[in-house]
Amino acid sequence: MIVALAGGVGGAKLAQGLYLALPPDTLTVIGNTADDFDHFGLRISPDLDTVLYTLAGLANPATGWGIAGDSFRALDLLKRYGAEDWFAIGDLDFATHIRRSELLRAGHAPTAVAATLASGLGLRARLLPMCDEPVATIVETPDGPLGFQDYFVRRRHQDTVNAVRFDGIERATLPDGVAAALREATAIVLCPSNPIVSLGPILAVPGLRAALRAAPGRKVAVSPIVGGRALKGPADRMLAGLGHDVSPVGVARLYRDFLDGFVLDETDAALAPEVEALSLRALVAQTVMGDAADRRRLAEEILAFARDE
Amino acid sequence: MIVALAGGVGGAKLAQGLYLALPPDTLTVIGNTADDFDHFGLRISPDLDTVLYTLAGLANPATGWGIAGDSFRALDLLKRYGAEDWFAIGDLDFATHIRRSELLRAGHAPTAVAATLASGLGLRARLLPMCDEPVATIVETPDGPLGFQDYFVRRRHQDTVNAVRFDGIERATLPDGVAAALREATAIVLCPSNPIVSLGPILAVPGLRAALRAAPGRKVAVSPIVGGRALKGPADRMLAGLGHDVSPVGVARLYRDFLDGFVLDETDAALAPEVEALSLRALVAQTVMGDAADRRRLAEEILAFARDE
Repeated sequence: MIVALAGGVGGAKLAQGLYLALPPDTLTVIGNTADDFDHFGLRISPDLDTVLYTLAGLANPATGWGIAGDSFRALDLLKRYGAEDWFAIGDLDFATHIRRSELLRAGHAPTAVAATLASGLGLRARLLPMCDEPVATIVETPDGPLGFQDYFVRRRHQDTVNAVRFDGIERATLPDGVAAALREATAIVLCPSNPIVSLGPILAVPGLRAALRAAPGRKVAVSPIVGGRALKGPADRMLAGLGHDVSPVGVARLYRDFLDGFVLDETDAALAPEVEALSLRALVAQTVMGDAADRRRLAEEILAFARDE
Repeated sequence: MIVALAGGVGGAKLAQGLYLALPPDTLTVIGNTADDFDHFGLRISPDLDTVLYTLAGLANPATGWGIAGDSFRALDLLKRYGAEDWFAIGDLDFATHIRRSELLRAGHAPTAVAATLASGLGLRARLLPMCDEPVATIVETPDGPLGFQDYFVRRRHQDTVNAVRFDGIERATLPDGVAAALREATAIVLCPSNPIVSLGPILAVPGLRAALRAAPGRKVAVSPIVGGRALKGPADRMLAGLGHDVSPVGVARLYRDFLDGFVLDETDAALAPEVEALSLRALVAQTVMGDAADRRRLAEEILAFARDE
């Protein structure tokens, strides 16, 4: 059994690589739900959905989010009805949000809902929300606190981030399924997701970090920073703003308490000794992922790295 | 100002005829909301939506409900997610339900929501729910009580109807807008809708029937029964089952306390004297409506009939 911790687009790519590289029913992806929000009266779970669609082979390759070939007829009519249009939801995508919202309102836990959606798309991997309690990432900016999607999508992550907090995280509890998956995994892969707002909330669930430290499997993280920049999104500016090194080494330090190995891009090969100086094994690889074959190739390298003594 | 009372498909056709025959902003349609229900966690208002789409020229001509040319991508995916599929909702149609549900949850009254939707589609007519309180038509059948959509759509109105009740109707109050529209109308047209479950709930709103009796405008009803049968739906079987004559005369009797004139189809011309024997003026017309021009032609005849001394 292999566990991946993944945020949105970047993390989902490697999660898909692992899914393709592994036998069916051996991968568990633990996803970030702190950027879930209510929109159009529906409960949207952007990171989980990105992982869901990507693993199912449905993701829009141009954007990384949403469903390939989706249409936007409902959204266009919603605009005519005066609804906000800054968050794009396609007709197929709406089905996911409608079903999720319906099941949540009927009393199903997010874990059960994620299983229903994954099974509906025929997924042979488990997709687990980091917790069943609502948690909300709030970004403190010079203009005041912003909900994550407000900051990320509506304002296109242009604001300076002074601080990040996860509202409700202190009431979150580690789901049994997450605890068991971590305990039983032979390898735990931290995908190249934003360490602050994608993997950060997962790691902040009370008990999760301790569970990682106690887990017997090899824990390997992949740098989302390549050549001093985030491949996608604001991770680089966030790391800098919050006082971290914008480098693979800065990321590795964040996971140092539980990590065994760290994967950095060929571009940053010169930094491998600095990673090793943190008492971590280092793997230098081509981490910038293109198509599915590329994702699978990286996943196989990482799995081999995790297996090595 | 003209007021129409309309249920679903049949009523909406004449409402559209009136809309086309009248100057902009002079038609008010009072619609049935007792067959509203929750589905996929969304609030669906089938009769109001049918009127909305029909007046906006968007209705699917093949079915009478839904939007012409709509696609069913979201519904197909919802089925994969295990959702029920007996109530067909297209991608465009979903936008209406999503927006309605969002606004209702945000505290807007159904009257305000209907105005938003109508305005979004550029409608130059007012569309008023019969009341802002939830009312639910329950059909008593040999198999027990059924919610209206359950009876009508899921079970295809095959059950014998022993009784019909409108749960919550005693708590409904006549909206100010409805009362004012009735008071100010020069003519009030009861469209050829099912007298039991479409116009029945509207007429059962406390105070509405008295408001009709007190209204100074001419009140004219159009028979939904032609040649001893309902043009569409189960109105004929319902009337028979509940002890009414399945004829224009049987329908006219139901409205006799407030009605001035009654329109019956050419097929039933021989029954005109029986209608007149109820102290009602009778108009014999071609009431079976085809295209928009046909609807407008009938509407113009009815308006002329209502104007006649």
